[in-house]
Amino acid sequence: MAEALVLERKGELALRDIALPDQLGPQDVRIAVHTVGVCGSDVHFYTHGKIGPFVVKEPMILGHEASGTVVQTGADVQHLKVGDRVCMEPGIPDPTSRASRLGIYNVDPAVTFWATPPVHGCLTPHVIHPAAFTFKLPDTMSFAEGAMVEPFAIGMQSALRARIQPGDVGLVTGAGPIGMMTALAALAGGCAKVYVADLAQPKLDIIGAYDGIETINIRQQPAAEAIAEATDGWGADVVFECSGAAPAVLGLPALARPGGAIVLVGMPVDPVPVDIVGLQAKELRVETVFRYANIYDRAIALIGAGKVDLKPLISATLPFSDSVAAFDRAVEARETDVKIQIRMPEA
Amino acid sequence: MAEALVLERKGELALRDIALPDQLGPQDVRIAVHTVGVCGSDVHFYTHGKIGPFVVKEPMILGHEASGTVVQTGADVQHLKVGDRVCMEPGIPDPTSRASRLGIYNVDPAVTFWATPPVHGCLTPHVIHPAAFTFKLPDTMSFAEGAMVEPFAIGMQSALRARIQPGDVGLVTGAGPIGMMTALAALAGGCAKVYVADLAQPKLDIIGAYDGIETINIRQQPAAEAIAEATDGWGADVVFECSGAAPAVLGLPALARPGGAIVLVGMPVDPVPVDIVGLQAKELRVETVFRYANIYDRAIALIGAGKVDLKPLISATLPFSDSVAAFDRAVEARETDVKIQIRMPEA
Amino acid sequence: MAEALVLERKGELALRDIALPDQLGPQDVRIAVHTVGVCGSDVHFYTHGKIGPFVVKEPMILGHEASGTVVQTGADVQHLKVGDRVCMEPGIPDPTSRASRLGIYNVDPAVTFWATPPVHGCLTPHVIHPAAFTFKLPDTMSFAEGAMVEPFAIGMQSALRARIQPGDVGLVTGAGPIGMMTALAALAGGCAKVYVADLAQPKLDIIGAYDGIETINIRQQPAAEAIAEATDGWGADVVFECSGAAPAVLGLPALARPGGAIVLVGMPVDPVPVDIVGLQAKELRVETVFRYANIYDRAIALIGAGKVDLKPLISATLPFSDSVAAFDRAVEARETDVKIQIRMPEA
Amino acid sequence: MAEALVLERKGELALRDIALPDQLGPQDVRIAVHTVGVCGSDVHFYTHGKIGPFVVKEPMILGHEASGTVVQTGADVQHLKVGDRVCMEPGIPDPTSRASRLGIYNVDPAVTFWATPPVHGCLTPHVIHPAAFTFKLPDTMSFAEGAMVEPFAIGMQSALRARIQPGDVGLVTGAGPIGMMTALAALAGGCAKVYVADLAQPKLDIIGAYDGIETINIRQQPAAEAIAEATDGWGADVVFECSGAAPAVLGLPALARPGGAIVLVGMPVDPVPVDIVGLQAKELRVETVFRYANIYDRAIALIGAGKVDLKPLISATLPFSDSVAAFDRAVEARETDVKIQIRMPEA
Repeated sequence: MAEALVLERKGELALRDIALPDQLGPQDVRIAVHTVGVCGSDVHFYTHGKIGPFVVKEPMILGHEASGTVVQTGADVQHLKVGDRVCMEPGIPDPTSRASRLGIYNVDPAVTFWATPPVHGCLTPHVIHPAAFTFKLPDTMSFAEGAMVEPFAIGMQSALRARIQPGDVGLVTGAGPIGMMTALAALAGGCAKVYVADLAQPKLDIIGAYDGIETINIRQQPAAEAIAEATDGWGADVVFECSGAAPAVLGLPALARPGGAIVLVGMPVDPVPVDIVGLQAKELRVETVFRYANIYDRAIALIGAGKVDLKPLISATLPFSDSVAAFDRAVEARETDVKIQIRMPEA
Repeated sequence: MAEALVLERKGELALRDIALPDQLGPQDVRIAVHTVGVCGSDVHFYTHGKIGPFVVKEPMILGHEASGTVVQTGADVQHLKVGDRVCMEPGIPDPTSRASRLGIYNVDPAVTFWATPPVHGCLTPHVIHPAAFTFKLPDTMSFAEGAMVEPFAIGMQSALRARIQPGDVGLVTGAGPIGMMTALAALAGGCAKVYVADLAQPKLDIIGAYDGIETINIRQQPAAEAIAEATDGWGADVVFECSGAAPAVLGLPALARPGGAIVLVGMPVDPVPVDIVGLQAKELRVETVFRYANIYDRAIALIGAGKVDLKPLISATLPFSDSVAAFDRAVEARETDVKIQIRMPEA
Repeated sequence: MAEALVLERKGELALRDIALPDQLGPQDVRIAVHTVGVCGSDVHFYTHGKIGPFVVKEPMILGHEASGTVVQTGADVQHLKVGDRVCMEPGIPDPTSRASRLGIYNVDPAVTFWATPPVHGCLTPHVIHPAAFTFKLPDTMSFAEGAMVEPFAIGMQSALRARIQPGDVGLVTGAGPIGMMTALAALAGGCAKVYVADLAQPKLDIIGAYDGIETINIRQQPAAEAIAEATDGWGADVVFECSGAAPAVLGLPALARPGGAIVLVGMPVDPVPVDIVGLQAKELRVETVFRYANIYDRAIALIGAGKVDLKPLISATLPFSDSVAAFDRAVEARETDVKIQIRMPEA
Repeated sequence: MAEALVLERKGELALRDIALPDQLGPQDVRIAVHTVGVCGSDVHFYTHGKIGPFVVKEPMILGHEASGTVVQTGADVQHLKVGDRVCMEPGIPDPTSRASRLGIYNVDPAVTFWATPPVHGCLTPHVIHPAAFTFKLPDTMSFAEGAMVEPFAIGMQSALRARIQPGDVGLVTGAGPIGMMTALAALAGGCAKVYVADLAQPKLDIIGAYDGIETINIRQQPAAEAIAEATDGWGADVVFECSGAAPAVLGLPALARPGGAIVLVGMPVDPVPVDIVGLQAKELRVETVFRYANIYDRAIALIGAGKVDLKPLISATLPFSDSVAAFDRAVEARETDVKIQIRMPEA
């Protein structure tokens, strides 16, 4: 039995004891959790009880953005030892599946993922995790930054799929947490400049404070017009659609340069109209993103080297005992908060 | 003055004399046209008077799929000589534009293209053309095959953009002329097998007669079901959408394997709904195609080497004097004809 | 105890009983071996007792090119059942290693490979193998062809690394078994034509009998001259160096077109001089090949679909009881034999 | 007649009047040259009279790294106007050649390049240049930085060919000017960290002063050992060989990670031994670099945005009247100087 933040059912959270398996396999590590970020998907399970086909039918522990300290290692674990500060990749594939053998284990249909029903998350003091998906933090990174690796990994996956070329001009539509992460990943990943377009000025102010990021408030100027001005009418080399909004998707062809790329990061709930002829007239490449694979080490490298600073995106840190309050704040304060984190008691 | 097939206005064709420029530049060649294929876009200009933003406002010569013989060479032309049998790339870019310098001259906004208003096509006995976009035919290729290079080039561009890996399973949705060309290009381009899905059995019979092509009549079985059966539920490595039909576009995610690719070749007139979350769940890559660039030499290489046989797709050959009849047949016989060609008088 | 072809030490082979582990894991299958090909590396261990750092110190069973029939399945095996005709990928990586997670399990330092010391090979009536590395043969493929998948996989890996574009001109230097496999993989993988250069006419005759392959006897004409003639002085799009011979390596820049690719397949024992400035002047890309990863399914697809016919490359088939003779023939008959296979008794 | 720095013959420079063509074509601009950098190749022509096949047979103006101001525009020039501050790409291809159409105009055999015999360079007050290869400088860039774009472009081409993935670890062997440019391009282009190895500590001190760059003095520790320590034995994702030294080339396989990339930037005069089996054992990809194509705009974007600061690499600026002295200093001070620039009189 361990204490955990349990989503009992749609709309009902409880901090209570729950029975958990306690078997440490030979390739596993046991980790004392230190910090856990609250993700939009956690919040969505709380408020809606489901995301697409994933429905909460049994009480489930929330949380999948975590850092901590190794407290026990399985018999075959070599690259980690007790006391290592780590962060954890929350999705575990079948390592010999067809997708995993190809290196795209994120699209392995057999993957299990923290806090995606029916799999428990990590908002509990200790977790057992495969060592292969547990990554050591460099001394230059705090636990708080360690717990930011997971959301940043989505931005990194987007930047990788974009195949950025050094000096590209990037454009991000939608300045939510993932849009911000994507903008920073694209900038660190080789873009000369990244433009971020949104209609919420407070969010634009947060991300616009970074060197190399410029903002477009689409209430004041259409993104297409702003990017045309900035690029002599050529368009952005890479456009990251992070809003999931239908009008943004429809307007994508006007934003990219001939031969450019679009990365679809935002997830519209239903099918949305796409201007296929517009995409074709510029022969654009469209990439899609599903979580990430083989990203944690390179995300940690960039953060640890100081090329990416995620600390300004941590809006608040609450103690584990206030977990329910943390989630309620996350539900309400979408316009002003970027990331809320929860700190475990013994941390 | 030269005789030509002139589209006077929407719905009105005439075989008549028309004034044409006659200046042979130093890097140009003059070509006696031999064979010209009738393309769906030629027919569309005839029946609708426009395609998207391209509107027929002045009388315009039709035709852009051509082969012929060099009869005169400009002063600086080196790789061609009088008597060479050739085919011609109908789109001419500004060679120093930004897109051209990048090697993607097909998306150069300054490109001029035969039989796209206001540029005349090639259904006339002689044309002047830049030598750089005129390609010698090997002895193994007939003029009729030479005039098939242009439509095949679109299939080739699709195969290139797909980045086929040797042994891939391909799937083409839509068995029109471009779908057939794409299937053959994908097969020659490395696919182990290519499935072609359509609801018109006569077209499936034509393309299904090729070794390596298998057909799916979607009136009898959904394409997704057929491809799942054929691939143990994994999906096609590469899906070429050549129908332009909204239901086909919406159903694309189910057809491809995790991490696979979709190439959008067909051109829906209006925006159509796309299942973005479905694409993301398999992290699919979506490529689009606009004409072709740097394709003619490799298309000729494949046809000339005998790896691709386009002759079965030539449904009929009519003399130049029957050009109007050829177009009227093309309007009517879409279900049974693949390609109608027109042969010039002195050919 | 099982009968096996055992390399006792350098130069000494014995067909004798040997103790083998007999534990079938939950994800393993037991296979009745049917056919095993004799590979150059098997022969090299026999004649030299080592290959690079791999030294035969204990008696070792030879053989790694195998097909057979599943006779037992582990508890968790799903995609195979008793009676399935299969071939086996001989290298088994650590599935959660860094390289494996990236999809490049062939370069996982922890990989174990049949008949590479100290790991036993498969020249014995039964083997136990992970189901994930065991591949079902289609009905259109014989066991003999199934045992050809392994050497063909090296050619396929070479073709994949080349990133062939449809209609490329390929050139293979060196017409040994791997050069032949590579030529056929490149041709099936999208090349319009593949030239094969060697100085042994009998080998050129064998591979030159295939449609789409042309041969260059470099005793009669330098490869660079022949390829220049064939390509109007432009060069091959992709050059596969399969001889491992120093003069061939030195001459590579002259064979490729500007911006082309070279794939280094042959393995020179010692460092050899490379004309780096020559490579740079054409900005060539050089790929290297180490075994293969994620190739078996696509190799089987191409062979099974009839796009690649490897049967003409099987020079002789001997019974298991004549295994030592088979190896002695392989040592002696390099000029005329391509592949010798050994058939197991109950097969 | 115009004043110019003329290389009369090997070893003899003169600042003197020379006759120059003065025809401004419709797509050309006339530029008042402001700043010209001294390149190692300029110096090499001065000291050796030739580089490979390029031999100085007639007096030739030196200089190809230049910035200036547009003073006249040809009739068809659209994207530039009088007064624009610009820098110039020194190599001019045949825009319709096969290589140019492919977008790889740098390997067009017909390219002409400033200060490569028999083509004059730009160390003269005015030059005429095609507008398509003349690039506007943003207000944030000085003329001195504008004249650094050319050498930086080589570093950028190297970074592009490497196909850096965000968060990669880079390693540069050789800390000459090009090695430094490459390190900065790789860092701006997405590397988390770039290690630079050399045996000259003064050069390492210069490049090591940049954030994100770490240095390895190979007199104190072998590069392979240092990079293994820094990467837990995995190796660098991308290795840029910029020394052209035979031992560095031979040692490359030990530096890269399995599946990593090597970019050959340095140019060894003669063929050098390469450990091909070593490259194969990690299945490394080897890219080569020849000048650059389509780089200027993205190089300017990175410098103009402040992501790359090249000013610390400008060791000295001399007036045009001291051009000969500037070259003599460049000959002598290789250990301490990175880049010497010459400023034109009216600048």
